[in-house]
Amino acid sequence: MALIVHKYGGTSVANVDRVKAVAGRVVNAARRGDKIVVIVSAMSGETDKLIDFAHQISSQPNEREMDLLLSSGERVTSALTALAIEALGFKARSLTGRQAGIITDTVHTKARIARISCDRILEALDEGYIIVVAGFQGITEDGTEVTTLGRGGSDLSAVAVAAAINADRCEIYTDVEGVYRTDPNIVAEAQKIDKISFEEMLELASLGAKVLQTRSVEFAMKNNMPIIVRSSFSDNPGTLVTKEDKDMEDVIVSGIAYDKNQARFTIVHVPDKPGIAAQLFNAVASSDIIVDMIVQNISSDGKSADISFTVQTSDTKKALEVSERAARELGAKKVDVNEDISKVSIVGVGMKAHSGVASKMFQTLAHHNINIMMISTSEIKISCVIDATFTELAVRVLHDAFDLAKH
Amino acid sequence: MALIVHKYGGTSVANVDRVKAVAGRVVNAARRGDKIVVIVSAMSGETDKLIDFAHQISSQPNEREMDLLLSSGERVTSALTALAIEALGFKARSLTGRQAGIITDTVHTKARIARISCDRILEALDEGYIIVVAGFQGITEDGTEVTTLGRGGSDLSAVAVAAAINADRCEIYTDVEGVYRTDPNIVAEAQKIDKISFEEMLELASLGAKVLQTRSVEFAMKNNMPIIVRSSFSDNPGTLVTKEDKDMEDVIVSGIAYDKNQARFTIVHVPDKPGIAAQLFNAVASSDIIVDMIVQNISSDGKSADISFTVQTSDTKKALEVSERAARELGAKKVDVNEDISKVSIVGVGMKAHSGVASKMFQTLAHHNINIMMISTSEIKISCVIDATFTELAVRVLHDAFDLAKH
Repeated sequence: MALIVHKYGGTSVANVDRVKAVAGRVVNAARRGDKIVVIVSAMSGETDKLIDFAHQISSQPNEREMDLLLSSGERVTSALTALAIEALGFKARSLTGRQAGIITDTVHTKARIARISCDRILEALDEGYIIVVAGFQGITEDGTEVTTLGRGGSDLSAVAVAAAINADRCEIYTDVEGVYRTDPNIVAEAQKIDKISFEEMLELASLGAKVLQTRSVEFAMKNNMPIIVRSSFSDNPGTLVTKEDKDMEDVIVSGIAYDKNQARFTIVHVPDKPGIAAQLFNAVASSDIIVDMIVQNISSDGKSADISFTVQTSDTKKALEVSERAARELGAKKVDVNEDISKVSIVGVGMKAHSGVASKMFQTLAHHNINIMMISTSEIKISCVIDATFTELAVRVLHDAFDLAKH
Repeated sequence: MALIVHKYGGTSVANVDRVKAVAGRVVNAARRGDKIVVIVSAMSGETDKLIDFAHQISSQPNEREMDLLLSSGERVTSALTALAIEALGFKARSLTGRQAGIITDTVHTKARIARISCDRILEALDEGYIIVVAGFQGITEDGTEVTTLGRGGSDLSAVAVAAAINADRCEIYTDVEGVYRTDPNIVAEAQKIDKISFEEMLELASLGAKVLQTRSVEFAMKNNMPIIVRSSFSDNPGTLVTKEDKDMEDVIVSGIAYDKNQARFTIVHVPDKPGIAAQLFNAVASSDIIVDMIVQNISSDGKSADISFTVQTSDTKKALEVSERAARELGAKKVDVNEDISKVSIVGVGMKAHSGVASKMFQTLAHHNINIMMISTSEIKISCVIDATFTELAVRVLHDAFDLAKH
């Protein structure tokens, strides 16, 4: 008998019939003797509808209110899912984020889980209930405020609950068959990955592969919680995300990701003296803007520096305010913004054991006349910022160059 | 400077534009220097949509889950309303039932408010916030379970919060201009009532005038909290519901109500011995069925009794089971059920000081060949059960007979 967490995303609970199908899947697992905790997202479209309502009212809606607003969608699906499981003759109980003991910090709209006080889940499991937890939401330590975990936060709810109750694994049900080596919309022959390390998945997730939320992968890695990503529309085995093992290194490049939602800021002609970067990025960080890549060059005039960085386009407006203020304070010439860029990245734990991967990537792009604006690397990843126009081309030629269709 | 509670029903917050209009109204009151607490219902149609979802899943959905499901609608409108007030430049904060300290008993789907722990509301008011509370919902004393207050429960939320914070008055905004002397759909010239006593309003509300929820009027009466019922679509003054005063007695009949959702049960030929009524109604009451009128007669055979009573048609099935079992146990002949009835009632505190009101009512009905099946009276009310076919006719002729268009 295993203890398993199931997580169902928005398309998996899109309507009453889909909710019933989810209940059927959960009940089948329970019939096999497993104890099940289910995490559900809002019905697909619901969260966007509520966001749209809020934006019809205010261009910058108060984030505390947004959390109260948006947390309602998951409550609806958790209650409906519990009802559907009961209708199949099993005991079920839905729990809100608060009732499930999901304690977060106080940063509205992107709260971090501080801890999970899972007594109530464990007690109800012992009493024979299937538990359905509203994903995406939590409550502050003092119990006063409702928080949400940011886009894709239900994945994090699932992994965190799985870790807290010491589950055997966390199964993330979605509308695709698993994690692909790259976007099948761009490369038709893209293969599904059977097994991938946490580290690779983390890079792929943070680079824009939208199957799993980044923080949920971090959390799973930290707690060594195996994740299975699979379809709620089929019985195929999906992709296992787990800790690195020997045979993973045979694959040099596991996947190719891209992210078009990036904006590049360049602070031009910053007088070159110690501490300017610190001053700039302190200002940016204190505005809760997450900076991705940073590059500093000597300017064309030789006496000052150009500092470039990228942020998510959703932060463009805030980042522009902050960097224009910083530019004035630093005595810089101006701030350039470019939203027509994308980041293309190759990922693989095998890179650690193979040389020449970076140069092969740069050569492949150069060979197709794709100019590289920024580069950033880690042990298992190489990212290039390029003109957004060439995104699909870059993904395709890299997929070819690294033989990804062959695995 | 007054402290005022505003309550907006489903049609008043039916869409984003209506929510903005509500915010405008609230802000106007705040500009006049008043402190405002707003209670909101779910957007019209939302609660019914969720109930429909649940019934697609289960014919008898678990009531605990229903409460979690249905409480989401008011959370949405409370957050949107707070955002809309902020967009007009005022500080606003939404509170769920739990956050507002609305503590109830544990009876899911029709919980009663036990007390309101209103510290958080008062503190936020002191800090200059306009508070928006999600109506219809509360939380159990131990904080574990979400409850709802039953249909129309947001009225009760509003009155209870108004009493708890010692508000000057509670303004209930709806889609009609106030309380009418009778249903304007039946009597075109029906007049709006300017002022009515709690007692009269309670009779009218419980007799089927759907403007205010009965329990909210009871609560207001107990706490002497003046209610103003008015339209959220106009600036007209509406109807003041307040404690009885001298000039109210000048009006003999304040209003005429009717209720078509009644079923009449008759237990025929019950052997006439002491305690039979007690035995029957004990059985009915222990099944949570609320009995309205009761009449006991000697049967046509002279040796036994016929006992008739009315219940809401929603309880017909349950009441039939109970009364057929009771009929067998009592040795009665049979149980007759008639759902084609209605109850027509005249209400007025002035009745206490005037005689002949009842006979005028009976004569008026008789004059139009409307047969009276049952009669029940209180100090300020006379109700007659008649054939449902004659409901509209009865309302019209009584409206005429008591000169209600003249006030």
